Amino acid sequence: MAKRIEGTTPKKDGYRMPGEFEEQECTWMLWPWWNGNWRLGAKPAQEAFCNVARAIAKHEPVKMCVPQAQYENAIARLGGTDNVSIIEMENNDSWLRDTGATFLVNDKGGLRAVDWGFNAYGGLVDGLYFPWDKDAQIARKMCEIVGADSYKPMSLGDPDKEFILEGGSFHVDGEGTCITTEMCLLHPSRNPEMNKEQIEELLKEYLNVEKVIWVKDGIDPYETNGHIDDVACYVRPGEVLCIYTEDENHPFYKEAQAAYKFLCEQTDAKGRKLKVHKLCVTKEPCYLKDAATIDYAEGAIPREEGEISIASYLNFLIVNGAIILPQYGDENDALAVQQVQEAFGPDYVIEGVMTTEVAYGGGNIHCITQQQPKAK
Amino acid sequence: MAKRIEGTTPKKDGYRMPGEFEEQECTWMLWPWWNGNWRLGAKPAQEAFCNVARAIAKHEPVKMCVPQAQYENAIARLGGTDNVSIIEMENNDSWLRDTGATFLVNDKGGLRAVDWGFNAYGGLVDGLYFPWDKDAQIARKMCEIVGADSYKPMSLGDPDKEFILEGGSFHVDGEGTCITTEMCLLHPSRNPEMNKEQIEELLKEYLNVEKVIWVKDGIDPYETNGHIDDVACYVRPGEVLCIYTEDENHPFYKEAQAAYKFLCEQTDAKGRKLKVHKLCVTKEPCYLKDAATIDYAEGAIPREEGEISIASYLNFLIVNGAIILPQYGDENDALAVQQVQEAFGPDYVIEGVMTTEVAYGGGNIHCITQQQPKAK
Repeated sequence: MAKRIEGTTPKKDGYRMPGEFEEQECTWMLWPWWNGNWRLGAKPAQEAFCNVARAIAKHEPVKMCVPQAQYENAIARLGGTDNVSIIEMENNDSWLRDTGATFLVNDKGGLRAVDWGFNAYGGLVDGLYFPWDKDAQIARKMCEIVGADSYKPMSLGDPDKEFILEGGSFHVDGEGTCITTEMCLLHPSRNPEMNKEQIEELLKEYLNVEKVIWVKDGIDPYETNGHIDDVACYVRPGEVLCIYTEDENHPFYKEAQAAYKFLCEQTDAKGRKLKVHKLCVTKEPCYLKDAATIDYAEGAIPREEGEISIASYLNFLIVNGAIILPQYGDENDALAVQQVQEAFGPDYVIEGVMTTEVAYGGGNIHCITQQQPKAK
Repeated sequence: MAKRIEGTTPKKDGYRMPGEFEEQECTWMLWPWWNGNWRLGAKPAQEAFCNVARAIAKHEPVKMCVPQAQYENAIARLGGTDNVSIIEMENNDSWLRDTGATFLVNDKGGLRAVDWGFNAYGGLVDGLYFPWDKDAQIARKMCEIVGADSYKPMSLGDPDKEFILEGGSFHVDGEGTCITTEMCLLHPSRNPEMNKEQIEELLKEYLNVEKVIWVKDGIDPYETNGHIDDVACYVRPGEVLCIYTEDENHPFYKEAQAAYKFLCEQTDAKGRKLKVHKLCVTKEPCYLKDAATIDYAEGAIPREEGEISIASYLNFLIVNGAIILPQYGDENDALAVQQVQEAFGPDYVIEGVMTTEVAYGGGNIHCITQQQPKAK
């Protein structure tokens, strides 16, 4: 039912990616199981993912996609939860933000999607796992399930190569502006055959934006190569949240300070100077424990005891009327709740979920979810 | 979202299985690929299944369920077809009539399902393949996808054992009557711990019927052990179609004659004497060719060159406004079309589809489909 759309772009067809804060139909997730990334047979990760799903399900439906070998286990742990459907889908790892469809809407009730190329965060250059064949099918499968026709952007430097882009590497305001990072989108492991202007052109055509704001660096140069969704996101058009710390010893200090100052100076596609809210980082950096309970896996980057985990409060998900916010058992957990509440205002409930285990795996709540906007 | 319903039955809850001729929401199918059953890498079978899907899709949506390893192939062959969605689902073989959910409706817009036990047509006694673990999950997965709560009937002779029943082994009129065969339902490979009265009691509770009409024999004693859906089915309440031949040399002669005569003498739950329409059998019996292109598979019954294939015109599917009817390139193809048209009347289009390849695999259009009724 879902068709590939050829020879045109969302911008030409009047489709745009809505802001995450716009009304949603549901949220998609992928079940974690890969012992080459997750500790202790992925059981603690599964518990964290289930808790995230339950928090979202208080506000909107969740589609939890699960491989066959984990189907009964997922049913046993999450089956029968109101607003949660278990849907079969094979996967390599569990980062649906990056592998899932980017949904688009028009103003006539239409729903379409972009199915970006995916190479596991760097392919054979510095990808995080191999193979990634099942993850590269996720977006297409989502489109089939919802009946959304999809675009498949190709490189402007090599018409036979897919444009590689992960959903966590950009945010939009739904009104013409996109925020991303140079660290990720200009990384030689993604689209080295294109220059910055060509990449910007594809973002403009496929997200339907007029302006791209390029933050220089993210905070995880070695995993996602600096996804924006650990650093800054939109609260509403014209207003962003950005991680911020004055602790010079914090491992994210330099990048957080630089991103904050840079964003404060930016104007968006509508000519608005951005209002930038501050969001704290954890008081104590988060370091990986019990790395020996992760399997050795050929093609995966070895995980080392005590290596830094990217525990950012900014990696939250906006759903209908709520923010699903990472909590780490850190001294700053409550401050993060307070700052997010202040930025979003009283119409939003803040649902804090303990997700240190997800951070150990390399991401957080935003990385493991993808919203499907309401078509209207 | 879909829950298991415990401690009650459809009859107690006011849910019933509608007749196949009642309005439908969609039809479900499962992709064939298993080389232990299908000839030539299942490529001819895939073509036949796609043709069946396309014929149904002219009249209502089709959900084609496909295992991950065949996903891209299925998309290439069937993707983008109007009214056809490709949905991921692992399977052992492809008989969704027998493995899929039996959907139920009430008169308040409710949709539920029965998730029968499945043991590959006989389990370790005379089952057709091993293992059947993925096929046993199909019904549950369908329920999750549509959000239908389900019943899981347990044996009355052993409360820890599932009631084993295949969807192709019974037909209902939606008004209180079920037709089945003793050959299948009383076969020692299904529910030997129950007597006929106990089995009848479960049919009555879970299909919500008052009367069960027991045809003695089906026409395939060794494969499905005599499913009714090769022999007789409802056209509308009070009227059935039954296979019929006067050719004493035809391999189905004895069973067809016996079933026809028996059904002509039956009354249904409403006290109506059944009107029985005749449906021809193929002029020439259908024998398996090129059996050597089927893989040897441990646990599967070996397929032998020249063995009889169960090519019954009766194994058709009723959809909204059409009959999807097997054709075999036989002299009687046109007669079958004519007889089905006469039985169903001018409100139905007869869509003949060549499905000899499906018969080589052990069934036909009814066996590879399962209707989802419209809830209203």
